[in-house]
Formats: sequence, C-alpha cells, structure tokens
Amino acid sequence: MRMRGIDFWFDFASTYSYPAAMRIETEAAAAGVAVTWRPFLLGPLFQKQGWNDSPYNLNPVRGRYMWRDLERLCAGYRLPFRRPTQFPRRSILAARVGCAAAGGAATGAAEGATWLPRFARAVFTANFAQDRDIDDPEIIGAILTELGLDGAAWLSAAVTPENKERLRRATDAAWELGLFGAPSFLVNGELFWGQDRLDQAIAWAVRQP
Amino acid sequence: MRMRGIDFWFDFASTYSYPAAMRIETEAAAAGVAVTWRPFLLGPLFQKQGWNDSPYNLNPVRGRYMWRDLERLCAGYRLPFRRPTQFPRRSILAARVGCAAAGGAATGAAEGATWLPRFARAVFTANFAQDRDIDDPEIIGAILTELGLDGAAWLSAAVTPENKERLRRATDAAWELGLFGAPSFLVNGELFWGQDRLDQAIAWAVRQP
Repeated sequence: MRMRGIDFWFDFASTYSYPAAMRIETEAAAAGVAVTWRPFLLGPLFQKQGWNDSPYNLNPVRGRYMWRDLERLCAGYRLPFRRPTQFPRRSILAARVGCAAAGGAATGAAEGATWLPRFARAVFTANFAQDRDIDDPEIIGAILTELGLDGAAWLSAAVTPENKERLRRATDAAWELGLFGAPSFLVNGELFWGQDRLDQAIAWAVRQP
Repeated sequence: MRMRGIDFWFDFASTYSYPAAMRIETEAAAAGVAVTWRPFLLGPLFQKQGWNDSPYNLNPVRGRYMWRDLERLCAGYRLPFRRPTQFPRRSILAARVGCAAAGGAATGAAEGATWLPRFARAVFTANFAQDRDIDDPEIIGAILTELGLDGAAWLSAAVTPENKERLRRATDAAWELGLFGAPSFLVNGELFWGQDRLDQAIAWAVRQP
C-alpha cells in the first residue's frame, strides 16, 4: 500500500500560504496523511501569467479585500497577524534555505525534512505576524539558530550553485504541474489551489487506495 | 432588534455563483439569517479591472483549474454539473428578470421577492447543469412558466427603460460597495467574496447584535 501523502507547494511571500503552513501539519496528521513541503517562487509563475507584481498590488480593489479577508481568517484560526509593511517581501533566501533543508545539503539528507516545517512556520510568522524582513540573512540565521541548527552552515548551503539550481528546478516543476498560485496542494496529480482547499486536499488523500 | 440578514450578490454567468445560489437559502435558514438576492452584471466590474472577458478565459491555466475545481465542488455538494459549451453566457436578460422580480415590476411589489430565489436556481441549473442558453427569451420564459408565473408579462417587465436602469444601478452599487467578483456576500458592510466564504458570511450575520 502506498503511503497517503500530500505535496504542499508554498512561497514564503504568499499571504494565504501563511495560514496554510500553520494549519497543515496538525490537520494532515489527524487524517493520517504525510506532508511533503515544497518551497518554490511564485514570481516566475506570475510573470508567465503576464504580471510583474503580485496581482494584489496590480489590482488594488482585490488587494484591499485580500488583506481584510486574511485578517479575518487568521482571527478565525487564532493565528497572530500583522500586515507586513512591505509586500511582497523577497522570499528567495528563505526558499533557498527551504530547498537546502529538503535536500539535506548541509549536514545530511535525513535531517532536513524534519526541521523544514518548523523553519517554514517560523519564517511565515516573521513575515506575517512580526513584520520582519525575511530577506535579511541575519533574521533567517537567527531563526535557524533558534531551531538549534547551524545557521551559518545552512545559509552557506542555501547559496551554492547546486542549491540555487534546486530552487529553479522546483519552480519550473510547479509550472509544469499546472500550478499558478500558492498555496497549492497536489495529491496523486490532483491539484488544489488556495488555503481554502486544504481540507478538501486532505480528504482526497485519505480516499486514495 | 434588527433582522439578521445577508445580501447575496450574483451574476447568472458566474461559475461559482452557481453552487452559492443552490446552497444559500438552506444554510441561511438553518442559521436564522434572511437572504436578499441581488442580481448584477459582473462584466462592467471586470472592465473596471482592465479585463474584456472572464479572467478564466484570459488566463487559460487558471481557467482550466476553475472548471475542475467547480466539478469537484458540485460533486461534493451533490449538485448536477455540465460544463457549459459557451462561457461566459450573456446573463443580462436573466439579470433583468431578476431585477424586475426584486422590484415587483409586473404584478405587485410583494410577489417578486418570493420567487426570485426559485427563478435564480432554475436559471443557474439551466446554465451549469443543462447547458441551456439563458440569453434566449424562450428558455427564460419557459422557466417563468414552470414557476407558475406569467412569462410574457415578466419578460416585458424586464426590458422596460425603468427596469434596465434598475440593473445598471445595481451594478454601479456593487462596484461602490467594493465588489470585484461574484458571488459576494455583504453583511452590515462587511464583504465576503466567493462561494467558499458563504459559511463565514452567515456566521458573521449571526454574530451581529
């Protein structure tokens, strides 16, 4: 029997990826579903759709609603929320660390998978609850240190040519899989988009033979 | 005490308005919330956002996902679904009949409000479950007749200058209220967008003093 699983594709700058990242482990575990965390960059996917900025910035009416909606959602999930003073923040450094973690680049392959979810939740909290600059290596390094990791080693591992290429490949793969936004969930090739679809994606995974 | 209520803004051509229209009366009634049905035209709001067509047509990757998502949602709600061969269908005739119903233009002010929800569900079913042309007066007339109404009288009432103006005013009001898509729900000035937000909008109405 194949392990029931869900691929969680996210960008650290993506607003609705924040509640998804905070919720997914608890909800998936309760359903017996394993989560694979897939950091990627949304910017190149937006460019392919003809946008040179977040659609929430390009369309202010839509953007104003999104911030209010996100505030209400976070209140409902009892998640702290503070609107970032910069949006979207550059998420490439955090995404590279996430890819290095997934690849186990610094200190062994098995370790990364265990701390990537905790790292991701800390980065999303920094961006969307603490208004901290997640593009700052000092802030990312401090988050790694707080997780008991070697911050300097992982920051170095993040920017190797091999690891940069890993993030580019992940982003290319996202587009090839049909993704156009974040968060997205993939279950045996079935795509679910938006944190609103997390429960449906988990239910889909549970129904897999 | 003010009656708890929710304004339901919809376009008969809007895909996600279909499940919203089919679900809202039952779910609102269970919560003791009154629904006011507000037909309007999404096209002018799209034009204000720089689009000359549905964003699902302008962005094929997004559109392909929407059709699959809608199919899954309808299956989950046990609603019949057949992808319309034309999208978006012209919805102005049905919207005008809806405005005439809300205004009670043909046969008295009180009657319209009682059959508008049934008319709307029948039109949505014609468009999204039966692939029928809701721009055809014969089809709209037949729907009215099936509801026990005077189809010819209501089709005439729909196209009076006064009623056409009523729909234009509703569409202008939608934009002024901050709407940018459909379905949308308004509860004491609080905007909720998308059929995914129906439950949240009803809960918001319940919490009103």
